[in-house]
Amino acid sequence: MPDTKPMFERVALIGIGLIGSSLAHAIRRQGLAGEIVISTRSSETLKRAEELGLGDRFEPDPARAVEDADLVVLSIPVGACGAVAERIGPHLKTGAILTDAGSTKASVVRDVAPHVPEGVHFIPGHPIAGTEQSGPDAGFTSLFEGRWAILTPLPGTDPAALEKLTAFWTACGSKVDTMDPAHHDRVLAIVSHLPHIIAYNIVGTADDLETVSKSEVIKYSASGFRDFTRLAASDPTMWRDVCLANREAILEMLGRFSEDLAALQRSIRWGDGDALFDLFTRTRAIRRSIIEAGQEVDAPDFGRHPEIAKPGE
Amino acid sequence: MPDTKPMFERVALIGIGLIGSSLAHAIRRQGLAGEIVISTRSSETLKRAEELGLGDRFEPDPARAVEDADLVVLSIPVGACGAVAERIGPHLKTGAILTDAGSTKASVVRDVAPHVPEGVHFIPGHPIAGTEQSGPDAGFTSLFEGRWAILTPLPGTDPAALEKLTAFWTACGSKVDTMDPAHHDRVLAIVSHLPHIIAYNIVGTADDLETVSKSEVIKYSASGFRDFTRLAASDPTMWRDVCLANREAILEMLGRFSEDLAALQRSIRWGDGDALFDLFTRTRAIRRSIIEAGQEVDAPDFGRHPEIAKPGE
Ligand SMILES: NC(=O)c1ccc[n+]([C@@H]2O[C@H](COP(=O)([O-])OP(=O)(O)OC[C@H]3O[C@@H](n4cnc5c(N)ncnc54)[C@H](OP(=O)(O)O)[C@@H]3O)[C@@H](O)[C@H]2O)c1
Ligand SMILES: NC(=O)c1ccc[n+]([C@@H]2O[C@H](COP(=O)([O-])OP(=O)(O)OC[C@H]3O[C@@H](n4cnc5c(N)ncnc54)[C@H](OP(=O)(O)O)[C@@H]3O)[C@@H](O)[C@H]2O)c1
Repeated sequence: MPDTKPMFERVALIGIGLIGSSLAHAIRRQGLAGEIVISTRSSETLKRAEELGLGDRFEPDPARAVEDADLVVLSIPVGACGAVAERIGPHLKTGAILTDAGSTKASVVRDVAPHVPEGVHFIPGHPIAGTEQSGPDAGFTSLFEGRWAILTPLPGTDPAALEKLTAFWTACGSKVDTMDPAHHDRVLAIVSHLPHIIAYNIVGTADDLETVSKSEVIKYSASGFRDFTRLAASDPTMWRDVCLANREAILEMLGRFSEDLAALQRSIRWGDGDALFDLFTRTRAIRRSIIEAGQEVDAPDFGRHPEIAKPGE
Repeated sequence: MPDTKPMFERVALIGIGLIGSSLAHAIRRQGLAGEIVISTRSSETLKRAEELGLGDRFEPDPARAVEDADLVVLSIPVGACGAVAERIGPHLKTGAILTDAGSTKASVVRDVAPHVPEGVHFIPGHPIAGTEQSGPDAGFTSLFEGRWAILTPLPGTDPAALEKLTAFWTACGSKVDTMDPAHHDRVLAIVSHLPHIIAYNIVGTADDLETVSKSEVIKYSASGFRDFTRLAASDPTMWRDVCLANREAILEMLGRFSEDLAALQRSIRWGDGDALFDLFTRTRAIRRSIIEAGQEVDAPDFGRHPEIAKPGE
């Protein structure tokens, strides 16, 4: 960056899986950092990140990685955020921004905030973008493009720091929203957590049947089942942590879902074609809105589109 | 077809929506018929089929359409098959093959068989291929390629007729399996009917929430919810009919699903991370098998792939 000063002198990425490595690519391409320092739990992943050239410096010790960093991003399972915050807290630079990418926010606030020293701007965040793949090889520059990033600033957050972090996500291609952590967790419970839990559940149910063989499930999966297996192939650690961290909101949504399913089941049992037709009609409008909002394309998906985004680019 | 004789002199397609029009394209490309005769319920759809050039002759009256046809394919909602069979039955040619594309098979056998005259080969079928779109514009030649078609021959079915119908689906690009109607309905209940019902249900639940706005559901849908909306945008008439026609098997699968979901809910409530991790790990293997079986690609889906198959080609 010879001509313009980068947004941050030094960015520390703690965790370099799908989200961390996508951030590394986006930061590089946009020239958002003078230096990218990477740290991750295992030496294998750190080595792989180095092979992929994701950063400028590779530090096994997260406490050393955050030294003098102007922006620190935790891209690790939400259940690990407390311990990592405790480890890095004392080494954070005054004036630094600390954020994260975790899929739940109240638990991250609860676990991380106590370890953040005075003078460090802790602004929790969550990019609403992802795939079912993980690890440093899975990331790619455009992951955040056209997607939303939600920030959940705490009372008293410095407006200048919030503005800077907003500019950062904007430069990565995202649109930015802010809301409070509890509302975030309720919204995500319905748009993300419940769909994943339901997908895991239905795949589990199919796996357990005695009357239909596994090979039949696989052969004929194109007729609907396949769509669920993508979500159900997501990282088990991440999703275990999400379920534990957002229990209340998830149980609330599961309760609503089960109640509705009981009513639908009753319509099927009693042959109430009109009730079925009404529900099946009402749900079409939502997809239309999603396509109009640019969060989906209208092309039918046959599970045979060629690779679209090439990981690592 | 100057050099080789087509597989069938005359094919009558009754119903010309997604499935019927895809068959028309495939028959044309492969030269499987000397003449394609098309009939459908409404004059608008028939007119559109003619504009699209899907057939050689367009008959408002299905009874006239099937006259002298060697192959008759019903591609209409399963609930409509009985009435249409009653109408066309007396006009079917001796030696003709009558088949259908319906998503349930026991009900079609029950409703159609009584109207099939002696000497006509009734062999129910179901191509395991589809999209969420419908109507004559939605079809395309490659819909059946690499997919399965299931035939459910009845006791005493003529082996030569079965062989010919198998050759027909093979020429359309499909792999063909046979099984009995009841087993078909149970297999499809888990791989297709339950996924669609669950998808409709979760979209309905989200639509009803007071604490999360509809615009939030739409904005953040890329995080999982979006995957369900595709299935939940399928044709309401088709799915009402499927639910009514395959009630027993669907209720059985719904029972299993709900039981499993109750156990999963309990694991979340009690914070049983190990049970969650186990389930979330077990479900990954199935996706791997589906990808290996060629029924899905391994590319992450971000809902932004360009149009892949151009309908009408
Ligand atoms: N995947 C998505 O679709 C998505 C979308 C939005 C937000 N998120 C959130 O983003 C975060 C990262 O997700 P991801 O998909 O990037 O995960 P990932 O690809 O599995 O990478 C996880 C990273 O966290 C590290 N890690 C795992 N367990 C740890 C622990 N106990 N202590 C310290 N570090 C640990 C891993 O280190 P090693 O490899 O070195 O062990 C790796 O660097 C999660 O909080 C997730 O909820 C994910
Ligand atoms: N869509 C899929 O993914 C899929 C996959 C495999 C099998 N199937 C099965 O294939 C069949 C056709 O599905 P599709 O997707 O092609 O449907 P579609 O695109 O909605 O077309 C339906 C066709 O059936 C006609 N029709 C509708 N109601 C009728 C009635 N009461 N009496 C006579 N004709 C009627 C329509 O005629 P008008 O337009 O003239 O009214 C139209 O020609 C269904 O049995 C379905 O279960 C569907």
